[in-house]
Amino acid sequence: MFDKKIVLLVGGVGGAKLAYGLYKIMPPEKLTIIVNTGDDFWLYGLRICPDLDTITYTLSGLVNPETGWGIHNDTTTTLSALERIGEAPWFKLGDQDLATHMLRTQLWHEGYSLTEITQRLTRVLGIQCNVLPMTDAPVETSIDTVERGELSFQLYFVKHRWQPTVRSIKLNGVEDASVSAAAREAITQADAIIVGPSNPWLSIKPILDVPGMKDALITQNVPRVAVTPLIKGKAVKGPTAKIMRELGYPVTITTVAETYRDIINGFVLDQRDADTVITGMQTLAIDTLMDTHEKRVNVAQKLLDWLEKWT
Amino acid sequence: MFDKKIVLLVGGVGGAKLAYGLYKIMPPEKLTIIVNTGDDFWLYGLRICPDLDTITYTLSGLVNPETGWGIHNDTTTTLSALERIGEAPWFKLGDQDLATHMLRTQLWHEGYSLTEITQRLTRVLGIQCNVLPMTDAPVETSIDTVERGELSFQLYFVKHRWQPTVRSIKLNGVEDASVSAAAREAITQADAIIVGPSNPWLSIKPILDVPGMKDALITQNVPRVAVTPLIKGKAVKGPTAKIMRELGYPVTITTVAETYRDIINGFVLDQRDADTVITGMQTLAIDTLMDTHEKRVNVAQKLLDWLEKWT
Repeated sequence: MFDKKIVLLVGGVGGAKLAYGLYKIMPPEKLTIIVNTGDDFWLYGLRICPDLDTITYTLSGLVNPETGWGIHNDTTTTLSALERIGEAPWFKLGDQDLATHMLRTQLWHEGYSLTEITQRLTRVLGIQCNVLPMTDAPVETSIDTVERGELSFQLYFVKHRWQPTVRSIKLNGVEDASVSAAAREAITQADAIIVGPSNPWLSIKPILDVPGMKDALITQNVPRVAVTPLIKGKAVKGPTAKIMRELGYPVTITTVAETYRDIINGFVLDQRDADTVITGMQTLAIDTLMDTHEKRVNVAQKLLDWLEKWT
Repeated sequence: MFDKKIVLLVGGVGGAKLAYGLYKIMPPEKLTIIVNTGDDFWLYGLRICPDLDTITYTLSGLVNPETGWGIHNDTTTTLSALERIGEAPWFKLGDQDLATHMLRTQLWHEGYSLTEITQRLTRVLGIQCNVLPMTDAPVETSIDTVERGELSFQLYFVKHRWQPTVRSIKLNGVEDASVSAAAREAITQADAIIVGPSNPWLSIKPILDVPGMKDALITQNVPRVAVTPLIKGKAVKGPTAKIMRELGYPVTITTVAETYRDIINGFVLDQRDADTVITGMQTLAIDTLMDTHEKRVNVAQKLLDWLEKWT
C-alpha cells in the first residue's frame, strides 16, 4: 500500500471525485486536501464554503450522488419558507446543509479560524484525512463578464449558471491572504503533490494565487502532478472549456499543462488524448473519467502506482 | 366600531393573545404594537427576535397554536443535522422559522433598521397593523441568578427554563438606545395606550426602560391602561409570579399596578380579583383568561368598550 504523504489541491465536484478515490485507498492520515475558498460567500448572514462542503460531504458519504454537492435526500423547507416571505433564493440551501453553514458561522463569529472550523466539521463527520482551506483569510473570486459586468463568483456560477462571457477573473483580498500554518506544514511534509482535475481558472488558480503558496509547492523536490480536467477538448462537467475559449486559450490539455508549468513536473492526461505530447515533464495517460465510485478508486490507484515508481 | 388609534406594548406569547384580539376587531391601520426586543440574540450567526416573531406569527395565522410561538406544523430537519455535527441545540429553530431569521439577518447586514426589517416581514405576511420593535438599537436583557450567576435572557428563559432564582434583571446597551421615530410617531398619535398582559419585568420593563419611552407615553393625555398578567396571584403562563417572589414583591395585582403607576391611569384586573382595590386609577374587572381565539376577541372588545366610554 502506498504510504507516502500526499497533498491534493482541489475545488469542488470534479476534484472531490479524485479526493474520494485517494481517501478510499490511502492511509487517511497521510492525505491532506487543500481546498479552494475563493467561492466562499455570505448569504442570509451565513458563511458558506461550497468547495469545502463538497469535499466534506463527499468524503463523509453524505453527498447527494446525483449532483455531487449538497446532502443526499436533503429537503428545502427553509427555502420554501423564504419564498413565502418574498425571497427568490437562487442558491440552493438544503435543510440539513444549513446546519453546516450555521455551525461554521457561529464558530467564525466566536473567532475560530476557517482551518479550525473545517477540522471540527470534518472530524465530527468521521473524516480521517486532513481537509484544509487554502487560507484562513476571506478572499473572493470575482468574474468580470461581457454581458453583466463584474459578478461575485456565486452570482456568476449559480445564479447565472456560468453563461455570461468571462473577460477576466480576480481574487479580491488575496494580497492580504497567506497560506495557513497547517497547509504550509502539510506541503512541507508532502512526498507528492497532486493538482486535482478541477477548473484551473476558477478552482486551482485561486489556491496558487495565495501569497506563498507557489513558493511552498515548488520548494518541494517531489512529484508535483496535475490531473487533466479535459478529455478530448471537453470538460467532464462545468465551464472549464467555455472559460478557456472566452479567455482566448486553445481548449487543449497543452494549455492546461502550460498553465501549471511553473509548479508541476508531471501531468496525467486522459488516454483519449494519449497522442498529445506534453514536453518537459513526465506524463501518464489513463482513463480519467470518474463517473462511478469504482472509477474514482481506479484513477487514484493508477496515480499512486505512478507516483510510487517516480524517478 | 372603535376607530381610535391604539398603541399596545407587549412581549411574546401572553401579549400576543391580546394583540390578536385587538387586531381582529379594530381597523388594523389604527393599531400599533410596540414589541420588546430585550430577548433578541444572535445564534448560529442569525439575528433572532423571539417576541417580534411571536407577534408576527400570531397575527399572520402562521403560529403554532399549541405553543403560542413558532410556526404551525414546522419541522426541525436543520436542528437534527446540527445534532449530527455535534451540537446540542437548546433553542428550537423550526425549518420554516429559520427563513425569518435568515432574511432578517441578511437585511440587518445590509444596513436596514430592525423597524424596516419588521415592517417588511409583517407586510409580506399580510399583516395590516403596525408592528414595531421598541428600539432599533441592539439591547440585551441579562438576568443575574443565584444558582448560575449572570445569564443572557435566552439562556435563562429557554436553556434553563426560567428555573434559576432571579436576583436582578438589567438591559445591557439600553443607555445607547432610543425610541425609534416610528414608535414615537405612533405614541404621539395614540388615542389610548395599552400595556399588554406580558411579564412586567421581563417583557414590559425593557420597553419602558428605553430612554424617552416613559416620557413619550405619559405626555399623552389619553387612557393608558395595563392588563393584568396575574389571576388570583398566579401567572397564566411563564415566570411572572415566580420572578415577583424572587424579587421580594407580594405576588398580587397591586404590585403589578404599582410597578406601572408612573405610566398608567387605568388597570384591567381579572374578575376573580374584583375585590382587590387599586387606588388612584380607573379599573375594569373582566374575565382576562384568553385561552381561546373567542376569549381573546372578547377581552379586546371589553377593553375597547371601556376605552370608548373613558371619561
